[in-house]
Amino acid sequence: MADNAKPRANTLQVLRDMANRLRIHSIRATCASRSGHPTSCCSAAEIMSVLFFHTMRYKQTEPEHPDNDRFILSKGLSFVDVATGSLGQGLGAACGMAYTGKYFDKASYRVFCLMGDGESSEGSVWEALDFASHYNLDNLVAVFDVNRLGQSGVTPLEHCTDVYQNRCEAFGWNTYLVDGHDVEGLCHAFGQATQVKNKPTAIVAKTFKGRGIPDIEDAENWHGKPMPKERADAIIKLIESQIQTNRNFIVKLPLEDSPQVSIRNIKMTCLPDYEVGDKIATQKAYGLALVKLGRANDRLIVLDGDAKNSTFSEIFKKEYPERFIECVMAEQNMVSVALGCATRDRTVAFISTLAACLTRAFDQIRMGAISQTNINLIGSHCGVSMGEEGSSQMALEDLAMFRSIPNCTVFYPSDAISTEHAVYLAASTKGMCFIRTSRQETAVIYTPQENFVIGQARVIRHSVNDKVTVIGAGVTVHEALAAADDLSQQGISIRVIDPFTIKPLDAATIISSAKATGGRVITVEDHYREGGLGEAVCAAVSGEPDILVHQLAVSGVPQSGKPSELLDMFGISARHIIAAVKYTLMN
Amino acid sequence: MADNAKPRANTLQVLRDMANRLRIHSIRATCASRSGHPTSCCSAAEIMSVLFFHTMRYKQTEPEHPDNDRFILSKGLSFVDVATGSLGQGLGAACGMAYTGKYFDKASYRVFCLMGDGESSEGSVWEALDFASHYNLDNLVAVFDVNRLGQSGVTPLEHCTDVYQNRCEAFGWNTYLVDGHDVEGLCHAFGQATQVKNKPTAIVAKTFKGRGIPDIEDAENWHGKPMPKERADAIIKLIESQIQTNRNFIVKLPLEDSPQVSIRNIKMTCLPDYEVGDKIATQKAYGLALVKLGRANDRLIVLDGDAKNSTFSEIFKKEYPERFIECVMAEQNMVSVALGCATRDRTVAFISTLAACLTRAFDQIRMGAISQTNINLIGSHCGVSMGEEGSSQMALEDLAMFRSIPNCTVFYPSDAISTEHAVYLAASTKGMCFIRTSRQETAVIYTPQENFVIGQARVIRHSVNDKVTVIGAGVTVHEALAAADDLSQQGISIRVIDPFTIKPLDAATIISSAKATGGRVITVEDHYREGGLGEAVCAAVSGEPDILVHQLAVSGVPQSGKPSELLDMFGISARHIIAAVKYTLMN
Repeated sequence: MADNAKPRANTLQVLRDMANRLRIHSIRATCASRSGHPTSCCSAAEIMSVLFFHTMRYKQTEPEHPDNDRFILSKGLSFVDVATGSLGQGLGAACGMAYTGKYFDKASYRVFCLMGDGESSEGSVWEALDFASHYNLDNLVAVFDVNRLGQSGVTPLEHCTDVYQNRCEAFGWNTYLVDGHDVEGLCHAFGQATQVKNKPTAIVAKTFKGRGIPDIEDAENWHGKPMPKERADAIIKLIESQIQTNRNFIVKLPLEDSPQVSIRNIKMTCLPDYEVGDKIATQKAYGLALVKLGRANDRLIVLDGDAKNSTFSEIFKKEYPERFIECVMAEQNMVSVALGCATRDRTVAFISTLAACLTRAFDQIRMGAISQTNINLIGSHCGVSMGEEGSSQMALEDLAMFRSIPNCTVFYPSDAISTEHAVYLAASTKGMCFIRTSRQETAVIYTPQENFVIGQARVIRHSVNDKVTVIGAGVTVHEALAAADDLSQQGISIRVIDPFTIKPLDAATIISSAKATGGRVITVEDHYREGGLGEAVCAAVSGEPDILVHQLAVSGVPQSGKPSELLDMFGISARHIIAAVKYTLMN
Repeated sequence: MADNAKPRANTLQVLRDMANRLRIHSIRATCASRSGHPTSCCSAAEIMSVLFFHTMRYKQTEPEHPDNDRFILSKGLSFVDVATGSLGQGLGAACGMAYTGKYFDKASYRVFCLMGDGESSEGSVWEALDFASHYNLDNLVAVFDVNRLGQSGVTPLEHCTDVYQNRCEAFGWNTYLVDGHDVEGLCHAFGQATQVKNKPTAIVAKTFKGRGIPDIEDAENWHGKPMPKERADAIIKLIESQIQTNRNFIVKLPLEDSPQVSIRNIKMTCLPDYEVGDKIATQKAYGLALVKLGRANDRLIVLDGDAKNSTFSEIFKKEYPERFIECVMAEQNMVSVALGCATRDRTVAFISTLAACLTRAFDQIRMGAISQTNINLIGSHCGVSMGEEGSSQMALEDLAMFRSIPNCTVFYPSDAISTEHAVYLAASTKGMCFIRTSRQETAVIYTPQENFVIGQARVIRHSVNDKVTVIGAGVTVHEALAAADDLSQQGISIRVIDPFTIKPLDAATIISSAKATGGRVITVEDHYREGGLGEAVCAAVSGEPDILVHQLAVSGVPQSGKPSELLDMFGISARHIIAAVKYTLMN
């Protein structure tokens, strides 16, 4: 600690020299690529030097070692643990890492997050500040690099570092004001931070953008611009002239006290405990499946956004309170925290809230894909079938959102059995997973022995005389089955398909069924027409001649009502399927 | 003022009685509909009574009169000016109304926003608090109804009203702590607020959820639940017994000092000033079009999120600084502020930032549709063709997002002329509009005389011998034209379509072209395959036999690179179109 707090004069000069070497690197690299942020790097050079060559403990040759301290470059583009670049998201991920370190790993590693002042305008930063103090994350240090300049002009608070300090303190953080170019002050502040218990530490560093570059330091209009080619050499020479030493640092090694964990080989070991005909909402089946999964793997964690009594994650919380993180109504931060918890394969993270609320975190979800995260998101109360609470609570665009995420598996189970399989498959599948769950109680239609595979649809009603293929998902599978029963009494057989996953979609089964039913396909979904099941099916059959698709989907802004009334009012009930089948057969 | 600050004892009792009447109403209404939030209403009863019957000025029979004070029920579902229900969004809209009142209307009306404590966990609330103090919105009052209970449990700060006060003060607000059930204290605080210059006022009100209902007041597990039928009568009787007066209030009339404004009849009065072949990025053409439009209508306002030098809205700012709102890096709040500015038809609001950053505000955009707003959103730097900055900055899912918004018109102009038309059409079109703009400089392909209509595609290359219909949009229109030139030298004619709007999509033109080219269609888009142009086309032709669609689109997470390299690497360049045409003709 003493070492941390008071480095010798010689050490200080070496840290200064390291900072200037970082400056030179950033200028050279961005000149070469003709793109990048040398002025932003220059404001943070001393902070980076002190962090990496004095404060942090890590194995240089094993950057992903679990015992290493973590570093998140929130203010820039980074690929270490989580991708940043969409600003204001790094601190939430850092919170997830710090929470994991303190409560799940119970290990010594610490988490450092470097943030820009511009990005602190993002509300997600304040969600994260709130989270960190609420959970007493004393292993977390956030550095605000207050360089006064945003992308297109000065920041609202410019160099009023006292305002940053007041805000951080009001949000429950232990806070230091420092000169961000003074390596001694930085060493001292980082040293102090390790002594503070039960509070995260914020270091508000007053800096200058483009520090050390004549005419460019603290000047506007230099954001994201490499140095002019003709000036680069002179600038580099000037900075080089300030370097006095040539010593290399020996980085402090981490304490090796992280537990060994395994999140591989998650498999369903006992069959689902439902019988065909049981009535249960898929969102409740999700909660029950979590408990089973939690029993099988002790690194399963669940996060929820003050909706645990709606999403049924409270069932898991009751059983495993130490593995449940209440993220309150801060969905952006919840997704970022989960990203952080899931880095370095420390946990299997499930997030649940109302599917409509997940739209709040689209940018974080998008960035999750870039980070190649494995988090699993569960959205309940989807569609008009959620009923009375009104349009603001109905997710009707969530399939469009999650389908557009690269490498995201989109499950839309139709009963409790398939929901339980979806939960297990999500836990063991690489990439993000989304499970869309429903509030309406629906009958169990599969036997416990049924096997579910990603990208494999179930043909749940078929005969040799089928005239039309109807593809539903979730609640509309049940509407399709009701329609099939009714139509069969009128002598019309239809084939009913439950795709199980909307992405990847089982194009082969859909195409072969369509061909077997005269090329006639009807899709029916509790979602808007755009980007959902129907369009996915249209795209899947777009290379096939003689397959025609008729889409039944919700349009416009729905009102409140009873689930069955709304399904009918928005054209996706059994009655409408029957009408569509007859219309299709007439044409 | 004296009247506001110190009401007589008799008045106070009437306000108390009004509060209890509101309680009874909420209990009755939610019992009847078997859904709703009586306990949340009960915590806010005195606040509502004082606001509506003592503090606010408005014309009771003309709730939408421009001179009225505004009220936003952020903590609940409301349809007055903006739809709430997705929590944490009301204050941003209130900021927009207050900004409009103070700076555009320069009128006396004031804006009141009632917020829950639970929703204050949303970062968007802190973005709005930051915005309001930065712009000195002294005509804005936010009331925090701190009733200690969220949906699924206690809030993180419970009844620590001093923490709310510290946070509001740190964010630059004049702040009062009050007992939220004390009508006298409330009257006093609201009266004081009118005296404070250059600062918005926060009133942190300590309240109890379910106030006045025995056993339910301040108890958990009563969120969003009507009173039990068998207890409702007794509860109502108890509350009724506390009502002592029967007086009706005469509501104070507003000062009538809002200017008359007109945002109708926005038409292009002079033709675009570009010549065929001029090279200009559509995102720059957007900035130039704004200035023209701003000259034609003085209620055009532009908001940007610290990206004005990228989106080119800075051209407008330079010309009309008083109508430009810098919203910094807080996209959620930016959308909410625009919603507020556009209420009651006070302004025509354009919002611009990088299209990727708009994903941050998906929930606010979704709620904008429910509010039936007319705001216009412009997203620049779309697709891989934006180039070097890397995947976090590339919008590849924005079409999927905006297509899923009900009643949203989605423009994707391909040159400067069509961009200028898109801007004018967006300004005069009901419902939300999105314009997708590109960074790459592309040639002007239309003449200034060309007429553009929403939902009307342009067939920009055609002959009687066309073998395939290629549908591009934005930059890929130019790739399709280059492919057409190359193929024509090889003796292969293709038809090229520029849809202009992706929603609504001109299905008739696409289908007739497809039929004229042997049913062969290729779509090519700088967007992910899911939810974009290609799927929209697949859905549009899904009812037609013998039309086959081949989609060229981006897949996976792109890296950085030069625009032309990336277009080629991700399979959407002229070379790939040529290959796809030949492949299609072979099959």
